[in-house]
Amino acid sequence: MAESDVLANAELEVLDAYWRAANYLSVGQIYLQDNPLLKQPLAIEHIKRRLLGHWGTTPGLNFIYAHLNRVIRRDDLDMIFICGPGHGGPAVVANTYLEGTYSEIYPKITRDAAGMGKLFRQFSFPGGIPSHAAPETPGSIHEGGELGYALSHAFGAAFDNPHLIVACVIGDGEAETGPLAASWNGIKFLSPKQDGAVLPILHLNGYKIANPTVLGRMSDEEVTSLFAGYGYEPVFVEGADPIPMHQRMAAVLDQVLVRIRQIQAAARTGQGNGNGSKRQTWPLIVLRSPKGWTGPKEVDGLKTEGFWRAHQVPLAGLADHPAHLAQLEAWMRSYRPDELFDDKGRLVGDIAKLAPDGARRMGANPHANGGLLKRPLNLPDFHDHAVKVDGPGGAQAEATRVMGGYLREVFRLNAETRNFRLVGPDETASNRLDPVFAVTDRVWMEPTIPEDVHLSQDGRVMEILSEHLCQGWLEGYILTGRHGFMSCYEAFIHIVDSMVNQHAKWLKVSRGLAWRQPIASLNYLLTSHVWRQDHNGFSHQDPGFIDHVVNKKADVVRVYLPPDANTLLWVTDHCLKTYDRINVIVAGKQPSPQWLAMDEAVKHCTAGIGIWDFASSDEGYEPDVVMACAGDVPTLETLAAVDILRQHLPALKVRVVNVVDLMTLQKQGQHPHGLDDRDFDGLFTTAKPVIFAYHGYPHLIHRLIYNRTNHDNFHVHGYQEEGTTTTPFDMTVLNRLDRFHLAIDVIDRVPGLAAGAAHLKQHLRGKLVEHEEFICRYGEDMPEIQNWSWPYKTAARTGD
Amino acid sequence: MAESDVLANAELEVLDAYWRAANYLSVGQIYLQDNPLLKQPLAIEHIKRRLLGHWGTTPGLNFIYAHLNRVIRRDDLDMIFICGPGHGGPAVVANTYLEGTYSEIYPKITRDAAGMGKLFRQFSFPGGIPSHAAPETPGSIHEGGELGYALSHAFGAAFDNPHLIVACVIGDGEAETGPLAASWNGIKFLSPKQDGAVLPILHLNGYKIANPTVLGRMSDEEVTSLFAGYGYEPVFVEGADPIPMHQRMAAVLDQVLVRIRQIQAAARTGQGNGNGSKRQTWPLIVLRSPKGWTGPKEVDGLKTEGFWRAHQVPLAGLADHPAHLAQLEAWMRSYRPDELFDDKGRLVGDIAKLAPDGARRMGANPHANGGLLKRPLNLPDFHDHAVKVDGPGGAQAEATRVMGGYLREVFRLNAETRNFRLVGPDETASNRLDPVFAVTDRVWMEPTIPEDVHLSQDGRVMEILSEHLCQGWLEGYILTGRHGFMSCYEAFIHIVDSMVNQHAKWLKVSRGLAWRQPIASLNYLLTSHVWRQDHNGFSHQDPGFIDHVVNKKADVVRVYLPPDANTLLWVTDHCLKTYDRINVIVAGKQPSPQWLAMDEAVKHCTAGIGIWDFASSDEGYEPDVVMACAGDVPTLETLAAVDILRQHLPALKVRVVNVVDLMTLQKQGQHPHGLDDRDFDGLFTTAKPVIFAYHGYPHLIHRLIYNRTNHDNFHVHGYQEEGTTTTPFDMTVLNRLDRFHLAIDVIDRVPGLAAGAAHLKQHLRGKLVEHEEFICRYGEDMPEIQNWSWPYKTAARTGD
Repeated sequence: MAESDVLANAELEVLDAYWRAANYLSVGQIYLQDNPLLKQPLAIEHIKRRLLGHWGTTPGLNFIYAHLNRVIRRDDLDMIFICGPGHGGPAVVANTYLEGTYSEIYPKITRDAAGMGKLFRQFSFPGGIPSHAAPETPGSIHEGGELGYALSHAFGAAFDNPHLIVACVIGDGEAETGPLAASWNGIKFLSPKQDGAVLPILHLNGYKIANPTVLGRMSDEEVTSLFAGYGYEPVFVEGADPIPMHQRMAAVLDQVLVRIRQIQAAARTGQGNGNGSKRQTWPLIVLRSPKGWTGPKEVDGLKTEGFWRAHQVPLAGLADHPAHLAQLEAWMRSYRPDELFDDKGRLVGDIAKLAPDGARRMGANPHANGGLLKRPLNLPDFHDHAVKVDGPGGAQAEATRVMGGYLREVFRLNAETRNFRLVGPDETASNRLDPVFAVTDRVWMEPTIPEDVHLSQDGRVMEILSEHLCQGWLEGYILTGRHGFMSCYEAFIHIVDSMVNQHAKWLKVSRGLAWRQPIASLNYLLTSHVWRQDHNGFSHQDPGFIDHVVNKKADVVRVYLPPDANTLLWVTDHCLKTYDRINVIVAGKQPSPQWLAMDEAVKHCTAGIGIWDFASSDEGYEPDVVMACAGDVPTLETLAAVDILRQHLPALKVRVVNVVDLMTLQKQGQHPHGLDDRDFDGLFTTAKPVIFAYHGYPHLIHRLIYNRTNHDNFHVHGYQEEGTTTTPFDMTVLNRLDRFHLAIDVIDRVPGLAAGAAHLKQHLRGKLVEHEEFICRYGEDMPEIQNWSWPYKTAARTGD
Repeated sequence: MAESDVLANAELEVLDAYWRAANYLSVGQIYLQDNPLLKQPLAIEHIKRRLLGHWGTTPGLNFIYAHLNRVIRRDDLDMIFICGPGHGGPAVVANTYLEGTYSEIYPKITRDAAGMGKLFRQFSFPGGIPSHAAPETPGSIHEGGELGYALSHAFGAAFDNPHLIVACVIGDGEAETGPLAASWNGIKFLSPKQDGAVLPILHLNGYKIANPTVLGRMSDEEVTSLFAGYGYEPVFVEGADPIPMHQRMAAVLDQVLVRIRQIQAAARTGQGNGNGSKRQTWPLIVLRSPKGWTGPKEVDGLKTEGFWRAHQVPLAGLADHPAHLAQLEAWMRSYRPDELFDDKGRLVGDIAKLAPDGARRMGANPHANGGLLKRPLNLPDFHDHAVKVDGPGGAQAEATRVMGGYLREVFRLNAETRNFRLVGPDETASNRLDPVFAVTDRVWMEPTIPEDVHLSQDGRVMEILSEHLCQGWLEGYILTGRHGFMSCYEAFIHIVDSMVNQHAKWLKVSRGLAWRQPIASLNYLLTSHVWRQDHNGFSHQDPGFIDHVVNKKADVVRVYLPPDANTLLWVTDHCLKTYDRINVIVAGKQPSPQWLAMDEAVKHCTAGIGIWDFASSDEGYEPDVVMACAGDVPTLETLAAVDILRQHLPALKVRVVNVVDLMTLQKQGQHPHGLDDRDFDGLFTTAKPVIFAYHGYPHLIHRLIYNRTNHDNFHVHGYQEEGTTTTPFDMTVLNRLDRFHLAIDVIDRVPGLAAGAAHLKQHLRGKLVEHEEFICRYGEDMPEIQNWSWPYKTAARTGD
C-alpha cells in the first residue's frame, strides 16, 4: 500500500476534522471569554482582557494526539501521553475535552456550548487552569513548567508495565537541556520483556521563545546519526500540508507499532530475552512541522507561522488593532467550526468516534492517575533486622547496611508484584545498600562480560551516573502507582533541587484534586554525608538540601536524621508507608556506635524527638543546660561532650535531647509534625542555654525555632562551610561541632560555670591543640578519639 | 608514514618514561608516606595509615598529558588541560610536579627526594590537598568533584581566545550526566574565527565506581554515529599495549591538530567565515584504555586492571595482607623508578625535556589562572542611563530594559577587547535586555534563514535552552579572565544550584591561595520573578535561590533586590566592578513605578538599606511601626499600604525602610555587609513592630535577623508557596503580601491601635472581598489597583 493511501478518505476526513476541532478549542482557550461557537461576528467584548497562553507548540500536539487516538482505538492499545512541550496546555485540555474525560472529571465543563464557554474562559484565568499540562490536566503525569524531564518520566512510567506504551512528545527546546539529552539512554535500562515501551516523538518545530533550536536546524542526516548513536531508529514525518502529513503520520505510526511489537515479541517468546542478548534499537518519530501550524502566516507583515513569533499569543492588542481581531476571526473560522460542532456545541457525526472508549482514552488511562493502581508494599517486619544493642553504645553497626538488609526483604516480598525499585547514581554498593544484591541485580541491557557482577536484564536496582535520570525515572515510576527509594551522596542531591521543587508543586496541587489518588512518597536516603567525605573532601560536602526542601509546603515535606541503625530502620519502614510526601532521610554509612535498642528506637522515632535519659543527668529536674543533637555525627559528639562534662563537672545537670524528625522543631501551626509550645518548652526549657549540635547549616535550626519561647538561648553548632580532605573528627573540629568545642560552649553559656570550670576549659583547649598536632603528624585521629565509647553502660532494655 | 612510525625510538622512549614517571608519582601519592624512591624494600611503615584516593582514571590522564606535552613543545601551542574525571587529582599533581610548575608555586615541594616525599604525604592528608583537580592544582580551572561540567567549562575558556586550544578530558562516567550530554552542542556556538578550539578527549575506561558505563559498552560504530550526529569527527585510540598505544595516540594527535588548523585557517582567511557558511565538524578523540591501566591485573584473584575494582585504592588492608604490600612494591617497581629518577630524586636524562617551557607548560598557562589576564571592563557612566524621576512614583519604567541599555554600552565599550558576554536560556529578549541587540547578536553557527533576526557567527549573546550550559560557559569564561552576566527566570535558576555550590567552593579556596589572581564575579540577573508569572503560574514560581546562595560563605555571596530601575543600574554597575563573588540581583521586567532619582539611588544603594523619608511619617521620632520592604513588588505594596494608613490613620507614625542589599540584615560579624547592631536598631528600633514585606520565603528574613535585638517583633510577609496563574496583585493577596494584608497587620501589631482602627480593618477586609469578586468576573485587577500611584508628590531632587 502506498503511503498516501494508508488512510481511507473517510478516516482521513475524521482525523482532520478532529484535529481542526482540537485546534479550534485551543485558540478559543487563549482568546475567548464569550461567543465560543462564533455564532456572532467576533467582537472585542468576546475577547479576554488579558491574553495569556502559548499557541506555537499546540497544533503539533493536537496532530499527534489525534493520530494516537486512531491507533489506540484500532489496536486497543494501553497508552498514556506525556506532553513535554512546556506550554502545550491548550492542546491537552482540548483533547481531553473532545474525548469526554475532561467533563467527567470537571462536570461543570459540559460538552456543549455553555461548557465550551467555561472551558475557554478558565484557561490562564485567575482561579482557572494553568497554561501547561499539569496535575489538573486529565491524563497527565508531567508538569510542563521546567523543561528536561519528559523522557525520564516516560521511562519511569514504562518500567514494570509490560503492556503500556508511553507516547512522549519532546519539544526541540526541551531537547537542548542536559537532563533530556541524557534521557535518551533510558533504553539501555528498559527491558523489552518486563517493561513497556516508550515511543519518543521528537517534535521539531524549529524555535524556542525567540530563537531557532539547535536540533531544529540540524539536517535530517545529522539527526539520524545522533539518534542511531543513542540506539534508536528515527523515522521522519516532515511537512506543512495537512493531508499528506496525515497520511505520512499514519503510515509512520503503523510502522513503529509493528516494530515495537516485534521487539517485545522477540524478547517475550524467548528469542533474545536472555541476559547477554543484544540490546534492541527502538523506533523514534521525528515530527518536523511548523511552529504555530495553521495559525496566522504573517502578523503585521512579519513571518509568524513557522517562526518563533508564533510561540505565545500571535495576535495581540486586539482592542487597538481591529485588523488583528479580524485576522483572529478568520483564523478561527478557517477550522470550519460549523462543520465540527452542532448548534449545541457537540461534536457532529463521526468525529467523536475517533476517540477511544473508557479507560483507553489517554485522559482516563489509570496509569496517569497512578494512585488508582497503587498497591501498598508488602513490608517486612523491621524488628527482624534490628541491631542488638546492649545498652547505649553497646554495639557498632553501619546504619545503611542494616537498612540494605531490610530493603532486600522489601524486594523479596514484592518480587511478584514488581512494584518497587531502588535508584541511585552508581552508589548502591558505595552507600552500603549492597545486601539487596542477594535478591536482585542492577538492570542493564548493554553487553556484559564474564567478570560483571550483579548486572542483568531483569534487575530492579537502577544506576546511572545522572541524578537527573534517577530522579526522573523514580518520579515517573511512583506517579504511575509504584514505590521506590533513591540513594545519593548528600552534596550532589542539589543536582535535582529544581526537580524536587517541581515534584513538591505537583503534590501540593494534586492534594487539592479529589480525583487524583495519592501516590507513594518520593523517598531519599542521603548518605556519604557532609561529615564523612574522607576520600573526597570539600567538593563533596554540602548539607543544604534539607534547607531547600524545608522551603516547600509543610504538608509535603519530612526530614529525618536517625542517629543509628535501629532508628534508621524505623524511619525507612515509616517512609515506605506514607504517600504524597517527600521524605528526606540523612544517615551515615560508616561503622558507628548504636544508641537505642529496637523498642527504644520505636518509641523515640514515634515521638520524633525526645530526652535521652541514659545520657542526661538532670534526673527529672530543670537542667542547667540542654544538649540537643540531630544527625549521627552530632549525636556522637554530643554524647562525647556529655561524657567529658559528667566526668569533670559531676554537679552540672545536663539534659540530652535527640531529634530524629526535624520538623518537630517547627511550630505546630507551621508543620503538622511541629510540637506544641508546651511540649517544646518542656524539652528545651524556657530560659536555659541550649547547645544544639546539628548535622547541617546552623541557620536552619534558628529559622525553625525563631518563634519559640527560648530561642534566644539556642546556640547551634553545625556545618560552617569549612571542609577539606581530612579525618572525620577533624571535620567536626574545623566546624566547631566536636566534643571539645561543645563542652567549651557549655562552660561559656551556663551562668556561673565559667569561673569554676576555667581549668576544664583550658584542658579542652589543650585537647584541641593535641588533636591538631596528632593529625598533622599521623594523618589520623588520636587513639582516644578513635577508641572513645560511651562509658556509662546500662542494662539492655530489649526483652526486659 | 606508517602510524607505527610516528614516534622515533628516542621520542617514544622519552614519552613512555615520562608516562611511567607520572604513574609512579601517582601511585606514590596514594600510598606512601616515606621511602619515596623505594631505596629501601617497601615496608608497612612507609605506607600511609589511611589510604585514600583514586587510581582508576589516573594512568589514562597521565598518558594524555604526556602526549599533549609532546605537541605543545613541538608546535609551541597555547593549551590548557581540563581534567573532567573527578578523581584525577594524582595525575594532574604528578604532571605539574614533573613539569616544574608545582614546585614553583609550592616551593616546599621541591624537585628532589625530600620534595617528592612531601608531595606523596600531602595527598588526601589532613591539611594537604584534595584527591581532585582543584583550585590548589596548578593549571586547573575545573574542580572535579561533582561531574558534568568539564566540557562546558572548556567551551567557556575557548570563547574569545582565538589562539587557545582547550584539551578537555571527559570520563565515561561524567559522559552519562545530563549537563555533559548537552555540552557537545557547544560547537554550535563556537566561532572558528574568533574563538579558540576545544579538543574533547573522551576517555572510555569502561567503568564507574561499581558498574560498567553506558558509553564504555557502546560499540565504536554507535559511538561514531552519536558524535557524528553532534557534529564531530571521532578518532579512536584503543588498546592496552603501551608502545602501539603511544604510536597511535601520537598519530591521532597530529591528525586532529592538522584538522583544527584547517578549520581555523579556512575561517580566518575568509573562506567559510561569513555568516551562513556551513558549520564545521570538529575532531574528537575517543581513548579506550583499561581502567587502572598498568596497575595490578588481579587482586585476591579478582579482575582489577580494566575493571571497576581499580576505581579507588586497588590494594588495601596492607598491614594485614603482606601479599598486598609485596604486590604494591612490584607494581611501583614495574615503572622502573631507577631509570626515571636519580639518587636525589630528579628526573634523569632527557625525560624532563618532554615538558614545554615556561608559560607553555599546562600547569603554568596563564589562561588557567585567569585573574592574571583579566582586564577591567570599560564601563559606561550609569548616570547616562538614569530614568528621570520627578519625585517618588513620578515615572514608570521597565527596570531590566533600562539595564539592557546600560549593558548595550558595556558591549560597545568593550567590543575590541572582546571580554564580555551575556548568557541566558533563550530569555534575553523576554527579560527585556534586548537593547543589547543594537550592538551585538546572538552567536549561532548553525544555518540561518532570511527571516532570522539578531543571529550571527560573531554575536556575543549566548542563548541555549540549558541553564547548565549557560552557567558552565560563563564559569569557564570568567575563570579564564573575562567578564559576564547571566539572566534567568528566577524559578529555574535552581537548575544550577549545585553548580553554584561548586563555584562558591572554588572561590572560597582560591581566595586562600595567594598565587590565584582574583577573577570577575559571577553575576546573575534573576527576573521574570515569582510575583510576575502572569503567563506561567505556579510551576514558574520559586524565590528560593536566594536561600540557597546565602548558605555559602559570606565572603563570596551578595544578594541585591533593587526596587526600581535606577537602583538596578547602580547595582549592575557595582557588580561588574567586583571580583571573586557571586552576585545575585533580583529585579522586575514589568512597567513599574520608579521611586528614586539617580542621585538618591546612588546614596540608597551605597548604604544598601535606608529609611525612605518621603514615605515615612515619623519625622525623625521613634515610629509606631516600621514598614520594611525588599524587592520591587513588596516595595510597591508597602508604599500602597502606607498610603492607606496615612489616609486613614494620619496620627500613626510610620517609618519605611527599604532594603537593597539583603546582607545588611545579617550581623556585622556574620557578613561583611552586615550592619552593626547600633545602626540596625536605629533603623528597626528595639521594640516596635516591624512589618516586613519580602520578595522571597519569609523564613530567610527571620534567619538573617534572629540575633538582632528587636527580632521578636519582626512580622515577615513573603512568598508562602501559594501560586497559580493569576493577576499580579492577586498573587500578592494569595500570599498575604498585598497592601490590604500589610495594613491589617499594622493595625493588629501596633499596641493600642486595634480599637480605633476597627472600622478601617473592616474596610480593608471588604477590599479583599471586592478584589476577589472583581478578578473572578473580569480576570484582571480592580482599576483602583491597576491605577494606583503614590499620591504624595515631592519635588524632584535630581539637579536641585
